[in-house]
Amino acid sequence: MVKLYFGKLGGLVPAVIQDWRSGEVLMLGFMNQQAFKKTLETGKVHFWSRSRKALWMKGETSRHVQLVKEILVDCDRDALVVKVAQKGGAACHGGYRSCFYRRVAKKGLIPIGKEKVFDPEKVYKKD
Amino acid sequence: MVKLYFGKLGGLVPAVIQDWRSGEVLMLGFMNQQAFKKTLETGKVHFWSRSRKALWMKGETSRHVQLVKEILVDCDRDALVVKVAQKGGAACHGGYRSCFYRRVAKKGLIPIGKEKVFDPEKVYKKD
Repeated sequence: MVKLYFGKLGGLVPAVIQDWRSGEVLMLGFMNQQAFKKTLETGKVHFWSRSRKALWMKGETSRHVQLVKEILVDCDRDALVVKVAQKGGAACHGGYRSCFYRRVAKKGLIPIGKEKVFDPEKVYKKD
Repeated sequence: MVKLYFGKLGGLVPAVIQDWRSGEVLMLGFMNQQAFKKTLETGKVHFWSRSRKALWMKGETSRHVQLVKEILVDCDRDALVVKVAQKGGAACHGGYRSCFYRRVAKKGLIPIGKEKVFDPEKVYKKD
Protein backbone atom coordinates (compact mmCIF):
# COMPACT_ATOMS: atom_id res chain seq x y z
CA MET A 1 0.00 0.00 0.00
CA VAL A 2 1.12 3.54 -0.72
CA LYS A 3 2.98 5.05 2.20
CA LEU A 4 1.72 8.36 3.54
CA TYR A 5 3.29 10.54 6.20
CA PHE A 6 0.91 10.72 9.11
CA GLY A 7 3.44 12.06 11.58
CA LYS A 8 2.98 15.80 11.19
CA LEU A 9 -0.55 15.75 12.58
CA GLY A 10 -0.21 13.04 15.17
CA GLY A 11 -1.31 10.17 12.94
CA LEU A 12 -3.61 12.02 10.58
CA VAL A 13 -3.59 13.45 7.08
CA PRO A 14 -6.14 15.98 5.82
CA ALA A 15 -8.31 14.71 2.97
CA VAL A 16 -9.98 17.21 0.66
CA ILE A 17 -13.17 15.71 -0.72
CA GLN A 18 -13.90 17.04 -4.17
CA ASP A 19 -16.80 16.36 -6.53
CA TRP A 20 -15.23 14.34 -9.35
CA ARG A 21 -17.28 16.08 -12.03
CA SER A 22 -17.66 19.72 -10.99
CA GLY A 23 -14.46 20.09 -8.96
CA GLU A 24 -16.43 21.62 -6.09
CA VAL A 25 -14.79 21.03 -2.73
CA LEU A 26 -17.45 19.26 -0.67
CA MET A 27 -15.75 18.91 2.69
CA LEU A 28 -12.46 18.32 4.45
CA GLY A 29 -11.88 15.40 6.79
CA PHE A 30 -8.99 13.59 8.40
CA MET A 31 -7.80 10.06 7.79
CA ASN A 32 -5.51 7.94 9.87
CA GLN A 33 -3.79 4.86 8.44
CA GLN A 34 -6.83 2.71 9.19
CA ALA A 35 -9.28 5.08 7.51
CA PHE A 36 -7.03 5.39 4.45
CA LYS A 37 -6.78 1.59 4.18
CA LYS A 38 -10.52 1.15 4.56
CA THR A 39 -11.17 3.83 1.93
CA LEU A 40 -8.90 2.02 -0.53
CA GLU A 41 -10.40 -1.39 0.24
CA THR A 42 -14.06 -0.41 0.07
CA GLY A 43 -14.06 2.43 -2.44
CA LYS A 44 -16.07 4.47 0.06
CA VAL A 45 -14.63 7.41 1.97
CA HIS A 46 -13.78 6.71 5.60
CA PHE A 47 -12.47 9.20 8.13
CA TRP A 48 -11.08 9.22 11.61
CA SER A 49 -13.30 11.24 13.90
CA ARG A 50 -11.13 13.33 16.19
CA SER A 51 -13.99 14.14 18.54
CA ARG A 52 -15.34 10.59 18.82
CA LYS A 53 -11.95 8.92 18.41
CA ALA A 54 -13.47 6.39 16.03
CA LEU A 55 -13.35 5.26 12.43
CA TRP A 56 -16.43 6.30 10.50
CA MET A 57 -17.72 5.86 7.00
CA LYS A 58 -19.04 9.08 5.56
CA GLY A 59 -22.77 8.50 5.11
CA GLU A 60 -23.09 5.70 7.63
CA THR A 61 -26.00 7.56 9.24
CA SER A 62 -27.25 9.79 6.44
CA ARG A 63 -26.63 7.22 3.66
CA HIS A 64 -24.89 10.02 1.79
CA VAL A 65 -21.82 7.92 1.10
CA GLN A 66 -18.95 9.11 -1.07
CA LEU A 67 -17.84 6.74 -3.82
CA VAL A 68 -14.16 7.10 -4.61
CA LYS A 69 -13.27 7.89 -8.21
CA GLU A 70 -9.64 8.86 -7.74
CA ILE A 71 -7.24 9.66 -4.92
CA LEU A 72 -4.45 12.18 -5.43
CA VAL A 73 -1.56 12.64 -3.04
CA ASP A 74 0.57 15.74 -2.64
CA CYS A 75 4.30 16.20 -3.07
CA ASP A 76 4.99 15.65 0.64
CA ARG A 77 2.64 12.65 0.91
CA ASP A 78 0.86 14.25 3.82
CA ALA A 79 -2.37 15.44 2.20
CA LEU A 80 -4.97 13.85 -0.08
CA VAL A 81 -7.51 14.99 -2.62
CA VAL A 82 -10.25 12.40 -2.96
CA LYS A 83 -12.48 12.77 -6.00
CA VAL A 84 -15.88 11.31 -5.29
CA ALA A 85 -19.40 10.76 -6.52
CA GLN A 86 -21.53 12.12 -3.68
CA LYS A 87 -24.60 9.97 -3.05
CA GLY A 88 -27.75 11.77 -1.94
CA GLY A 89 -26.50 15.01 -3.44
CA ALA A 90 -25.08 16.51 -0.26
CA ALA A 91 -21.95 16.17 1.85
CA CYS A 92 -22.70 18.59 4.68
CA HIS A 93 -24.52 17.42 7.78
CA GLY A 94 -26.27 20.79 7.68
CA GLY A 95 -28.04 19.72 4.49
CA TYR A 96 -25.91 21.65 2.02
CA ARG A 97 -24.19 20.10 -0.98
CA SER A 98 -20.85 21.37 0.31
CA CYS A 99 -19.76 22.25 3.82
CA PHE A 100 -18.23 25.38 2.26
CA TYR A 101 -21.49 27.28 1.72
CA ARG A 102 -20.38 30.64 3.15
CA ARG A 103 -17.72 33.10 2.17
CA VAL A 104 -15.65 35.35 4.37
CA ALA A 105 -16.52 39.03 4.07
CA LYS A 106 -15.60 42.08 6.14
CA LYS A 107 -19.00 42.03 7.80
CA GLY A 108 -18.88 38.34 8.60
CA LEU A 109 -19.90 35.16 6.82
CA ILE A 110 -22.14 35.50 3.77
CA PRO A 111 -24.04 32.54 2.30
CA ILE A 112 -22.97 31.99 -1.30
CA GLY A 113 -26.48 31.12 -2.33
CA LYS A 114 -26.50 27.36 -2.12
CA GLU A 115 -29.87 25.79 -1.39
CA LYS A 116 -30.22 23.04 1.16
CA VAL A 117 -30.40 19.62 -0.49
CA PHE A 118 -31.97 17.89 2.47
CA ASP A 119 -33.50 18.63 5.84
CA PRO A 120 -30.97 17.49 8.45
CA GLU A 121 -33.69 16.89 11.03
CA LYS A 122 -35.25 14.26 8.80
CA VAL A 123 -31.98 12.61 7.80
CA TYR A 124 -30.37 12.51 11.24
CA LYS A 125 -33.31 11.31 13.27
CA LYS A 126 -32.94 11.52 16.97
CA ASP A 127 -34.27 8.52 18.84
CA MET B 1 -12.87 39.74 11.83
CA VAL B 2 -14.57 36.41 11.19
CA LYS B 3 -13.97 33.99 14.02
CA LEU B 4 -12.52 30.62 13.14
CA TYR B 5 -11.96 27.66 15.43
CA PHE B 6 -8.27 27.00 15.62
CA GLY B 7 -8.45 24.77 18.68
CA LYS B 8 -8.82 21.34 17.10
CA LEU B 9 -5.36 21.44 15.54
CA GLY B 10 -3.45 23.31 18.20
CA GLY B 11 -3.95 26.76 16.72
CA LEU B 12 -4.22 25.87 13.02
CA VAL B 13 -6.86 25.40 10.37
CA PRO B 14 -6.25 23.59 7.07
CA ALA B 15 -6.62 25.81 4.00
CA VAL B 16 -7.37 24.20 0.65
CA ILE B 17 -5.96 26.36 -2.12
CA GLN B 18 -8.04 26.07 -5.24
CA ASP B 19 -7.61 27.66 -8.67
CA TRP B 20 -10.47 30.16 -8.87
CA ARG B 21 -11.14 29.43 -12.52
CA SER B 22 -10.55 25.71 -13.08
CA GLY B 23 -11.39 24.47 -9.58
CA GLU B 24 -8.14 22.47 -9.50
CA VAL B 25 -6.84 21.96 -5.97
CA LEU B 26 -3.34 23.42 -6.05
CA MET B 27 -2.11 22.69 -2.53
CA LEU B 28 -3.08 22.42 1.10
CA GLY B 29 -1.50 24.51 3.81
CA PHE B 30 -2.18 25.53 7.38
CA MET B 31 -3.05 28.94 8.75
CA ASN B 32 -2.94 30.17 12.30
CA GLN B 33 -4.82 33.32 13.37
CA GLN B 34 -1.91 35.51 12.29
CA ALA B 35 -1.66 33.93 8.82
CA PHE B 36 -5.41 34.19 8.32
CA LYS B 37 -5.37 37.87 9.32
CA LYS B 38 -2.42 38.60 7.04
CA THR B 39 -4.14 36.81 4.15
CA LEU B 40 -7.26 38.94 4.61
CA GLU B 41 -5.28 42.18 4.96
CA THR B 42 -2.96 41.70 2.01
CA GLY B 43 -5.07 39.63 -0.39
CA LYS B 44 -2.10 37.24 -0.70
CA VAL B 45 -2.09 33.77 0.79
CA HIS B 46 -0.05 33.40 3.97
CA PHE B 47 0.55 30.19 5.90
CA TRP B 48 2.04 29.10 9.15
CA SER B 49 5.00 26.82 8.56
CA ARG B 50 4.84 23.98 11.04
CA SER B 51 8.42 22.92 10.38
CA ARG B 52 9.96 26.38 10.53
CA LYS B 53 7.48 27.72 13.07
CA ALA B 54 7.15 30.93 11.12
CA LEU B 55 4.65 32.95 9.13
CA TRP B 56 5.32 32.80 5.42
CA MET B 57 3.79 34.27 2.34
CA LYS B 58 3.33 31.72 -0.41
CA GLY B 59 5.67 32.79 -3.18
CA GLU B 60 8.01 34.86 -1.03
CA THR B 61 10.96 32.96 -2.50
CA SER B 62 9.61 31.70 -5.83
CA ARG B 63 7.50 34.82 -6.53
CA HIS B 64 4.65 32.44 -7.26
CA VAL B 65 2.25 34.28 -5.01
CA GLN B 66 -1.42 33.41 -4.71
CA LEU B 67 -3.88 36.29 -5.09
CA VAL B 68 -7.04 35.73 -3.10
CA LYS B 69 -10.29 35.83 -5.04
CA GLU B 70 -12.62 34.36 -2.43
CA ILE B 71 -12.38 32.59 0.92
CA LEU B 72 -14.98 30.00 1.90
CA VAL B 73 -15.36 28.61 5.39
CA ASP B 74 -16.91 25.29 6.34
CA CYS B 75 -19.87 24.55 8.58
CA ASP B 76 -17.67 24.02 11.64
CA ARG B 77 -15.49 27.09 10.95
CA ASP B 78 -12.36 24.99 11.18
CA ALA B 79 -11.40 24.64 7.51
CA LEU B 80 -11.01 27.04 4.59
CA VAL B 81 -11.18 26.92 0.83
CA VAL B 82 -9.21 29.78 -0.66
CA LYS B 83 -9.86 30.48 -4.33
CA VAL B 84 -6.81 32.06 -5.89
CA ALA B 85 -5.16 33.32 -9.03
CA GLN B 86 -1.82 31.51 -9.03
CA LYS B 87 1.02 33.74 -10.22
CA GLY B 88 3.80 32.07 -12.20
CA GLY B 89 1.50 29.22 -13.14
CA ALA B 90 2.59 26.79 -10.45
CA ALA B 91 1.93 26.21 -6.77
CA CYS B 92 4.18 23.24 -6.07
CA HIS B 93 7.77 23.76 -5.01
CA GLY B 94 8.54 20.74 -7.21
CA GLY B 95 7.66 22.80 -10.27
CA TYR B 96 4.20 21.37 -10.89
CA ARG B 97 1.06 23.45 -11.25
CA SER B 98 -0.51 21.53 -8.37
CA CYS B 99 1.10 19.64 -5.50
CA PHE B 100 -1.40 16.87 -6.27
CA TYR B 101 0.28 15.57 -9.42
CA ARG B 102 0.14 11.85 -8.60
CA ARG B 103 -2.69 9.44 -8.00
CA VAL B 104 -2.82 6.47 -5.68
CA ALA B 105 -2.83 3.11 -7.47
CA LYS B 106 -2.35 -0.45 -6.27
CA LYS B 107 1.20 -0.44 -7.57
CA GLY B 108 2.10 2.87 -5.98
CA LEU B 109 1.91 6.49 -7.05
CA ILE B 110 1.25 7.22 -10.71
CA PRO B 111 1.88 10.65 -12.25
CA ILE B 112 -1.37 11.99 -13.71
CA GLY B 113 0.43 13.50 -16.64
CA LYS B 114 1.05 17.05 -15.55
CA GLU B 115 4.07 18.73 -17.02
CA LYS B 116 6.43 20.72 -14.88
CA VAL B 117 5.80 24.44 -15.20
CA PHE B 118 9.19 25.50 -13.90
CA ASP B 119 12.54 24.06 -12.95
CA PRO B 120 12.75 24.20 -9.16
CA GLU B 121 16.54 24.38 -9.23
CA LYS B 122 16.35 27.66 -11.10
CA VAL B 123 13.56 29.15 -9.01
CA TYR B 124 14.87 28.17 -5.61
CA LYS B 125 18.48 29.11 -6.01
CA LYS B 126 20.81 27.93 -3.36
CA ASP B 127 23.37 30.48 -2.26
